[in-house]
Amino acid sequence: MDVASPILLTPGPLTTSQTVKQAMLRDWGSRDATFVAMNREILGKLTSLVHATETHVCVPIQGSGTFAIEAALTTLLPSAGHLLVLVNGAYGTRMVKIAGLAGRTVSALESREDEPVDPAELDQRLNDDPTITLVAVVHCETTSGILNPINDVARVVRAHGRALIIDAMSTFGAIDIDAREIEFTAVVASSNKCLEGVPGMGFVIVRRDVLENCAGNAHSLTLDLFDQWQGFAKNSQWRFTPPTHVIAALHQALEEHAREGGVDARGARYALNHRILVDGMEALGFHCLLAREVQAPIIVTFHVPADPRFQFDDFYDRLRRKGFLIYPGKLTVADSFRIGCIGHIGPEQINEALTAVGLVIDEMGVIDCTPLFEVENSGVD
Amino acid sequence: MDVASPILLTPGPLTTSQTVKQAMLRDWGSRDATFVAMNREILGKLTSLVHATETHVCVPIQGSGTFAIEAALTTLLPSAGHLLVLVNGAYGTRMVKIAGLAGRTVSALESREDEPVDPAELDQRLNDDPTITLVAVVHCETTSGILNPINDVARVVRAHGRALIIDAMSTFGAIDIDAREIEFTAVVASSNKCLEGVPGMGFVIVRRDVLENCAGNAHSLTLDLFDQWQGFAKNSQWRFTPPTHVIAALHQALEEHAREGGVDARGARYALNHRILVDGMEALGFHCLLAREVQAPIIVTFHVPADPRFQFDDFYDRLRRKGFLIYPGKLTVADSFRIGCIGHIGPEQINEALTAVGLVIDEMGVIDCTPLFEVENSGVD
Repeated sequence: MDVASPILLTPGPLTTSQTVKQAMLRDWGSRDATFVAMNREILGKLTSLVHATETHVCVPIQGSGTFAIEAALTTLLPSAGHLLVLVNGAYGTRMVKIAGLAGRTVSALESREDEPVDPAELDQRLNDDPTITLVAVVHCETTSGILNPINDVARVVRAHGRALIIDAMSTFGAIDIDAREIEFTAVVASSNKCLEGVPGMGFVIVRRDVLENCAGNAHSLTLDLFDQWQGFAKNSQWRFTPPTHVIAALHQALEEHAREGGVDARGARYALNHRILVDGMEALGFHCLLAREVQAPIIVTFHVPADPRFQFDDFYDRLRRKGFLIYPGKLTVADSFRIGCIGHIGPEQINEALTAVGLVIDEMGVIDCTPLFEVENSGVD
Repeated sequence: MDVASPILLTPGPLTTSQTVKQAMLRDWGSRDATFVAMNREILGKLTSLVHATETHVCVPIQGSGTFAIEAALTTLLPSAGHLLVLVNGAYGTRMVKIAGLAGRTVSALESREDEPVDPAELDQRLNDDPTITLVAVVHCETTSGILNPINDVARVVRAHGRALIIDAMSTFGAIDIDAREIEFTAVVASSNKCLEGVPGMGFVIVRRDVLENCAGNAHSLTLDLFDQWQGFAKNSQWRFTPPTHVIAALHQALEEHAREGGVDARGARYALNHRILVDGMEALGFHCLLAREVQAPIIVTFHVPADPRFQFDDFYDRLRRKGFLIYPGKLTVADSFRIGCIGHIGPEQINEALTAVGLVIDEMGVIDCTPLFEVENSGVD
């Protein structure tokens, strides 16, 4: 295990293949034909991954995924619009904040962090409030690792004739989203999660007929998705200096994604990683936050053990020294930590990580990994 | 000459060293101590380069330089403020547009594209209009390649007690900006120009006592410089996934910048590149747009020859095939093209480029490179 360059078991940035990183070993002129052609190929492939080439266009935005989220929300929602965000974690909450800062009318339909958003409640809310024009939902809310039922959400939104934005940041390329089966206005994702590129670019796959009517909605120049699209339509070039090396890495990552077998194969590898991780951690005595049926194979939240010898920072540092980076919890409902299943890793790396967790628990002198609430429920001190 | 990976003689992205690119050959956890320490070092070094560690903080923003410009303008200018932009090219015009889209009061003081902005006119304007709170100026306006007199501008702005933002995108790290000699509220630049990193990150070096009072000014979450600064102040972490590989490349680029001898040495190399380029092009018969005394050693604008056998696209393609990427013109005042002097290149590459230009001119059958206006002035057809 290379401790200087640890395996990243986080919600991103992730471990990428050596060949993806090597694609960054040259410089590109951002207005040169070779680079322009590479971009056109990337945007086409991204749109194909959700089977939306007939109806949608892919518009990239420099920065992180949140930059693309803000670009999508503020470009697709006019001043007179009303956004409803389905919230069961930090990324839903963030969308509410973005729309509010931009001066838009925004409401939240909140669920518990450990429960999927509820399409029936959404149906009721859309019935009750005809002013809502746009609904936003997070596919996998990595706050907990929960998978939200976007197909059911999309059906409800469609039945009410509203628009839908799906934040697929942590699922795009590994969990199927199919424009032939569900109707969505936009899907937003980034270069550095399940596509296994490096961070630095987000993108929005958006219905052409909707985007056409979005001129002037954004009050930002850099985050104006309409203007960015028009820029590409004019000369296939980015309006502002693109992250050329990040884009070259994504180009390579998409080739490797296809070679692996596309969305299904990538999802299957992550599902295997996930199963081995959860089985192994449970065998060590840890408890998952979520019920298996609502857990996405992306990142898993574990309860912190009640044993006072378990201190997260110590646990983290010891795993770091053994070559694995995990992630703190982000929940408001429980004391927890998270371990990711995604990136250029397979069963071998997950098994090595489990071995490391076992050793660390021993080093720390933690005998029982049962979390506090289980201890309390069972009446044991 | 490696034709697949040409030398970039553009205003950016630029040719970077192999070692800068190799710094991207590992993955980083964005919340890990190693990465956090690397960021702290970078931000400290950037602030040092303008001798502002006592008074200013450096706040990075994902994306291109324009993202950092928008973040600076919209965070530092409150709704009640009034921005005056000194405009003598596209980047000044862009700042006017950004402020206007954000709903701020903005005025432009325009000069010709081939003349520096005029501090005396600025003095008059600030006398005439006490509502102006913030002045913005572009250090080197790469539209033409002109160097604006920021020291004189800063003295005028200071005398009137207004704030000043300097867009130093294309000069930072090569032309001195010294906070001990001039007063500025903020300097904005990016990773991929004279610092010779790769594109994907901008940054703003801003007075701490000013930024402290900017909470709530921005109506964007991702481009809120105050919030980004608070994020770093809290835990030295980026609020949103940072472009980890781009940052690692910048870390390496800053080491190479220091090893070369800092701002003076970098500037001296570019000045030499510039002198060889201009002398060589003039020897071939080309005419520069700008007078030598107002030309920055960053990028040079040349008039297109009057000879109809000179077609820019053909010239570009032929140079491209010989391994050199140049840049089209961006002027409104004259038909032109541009050749850059910056990036990880020296006299050897500039001389090779000049040889290539000579060969291409011959191939195209262009005998005389005199531009149209010179032909007209001399009365020759």
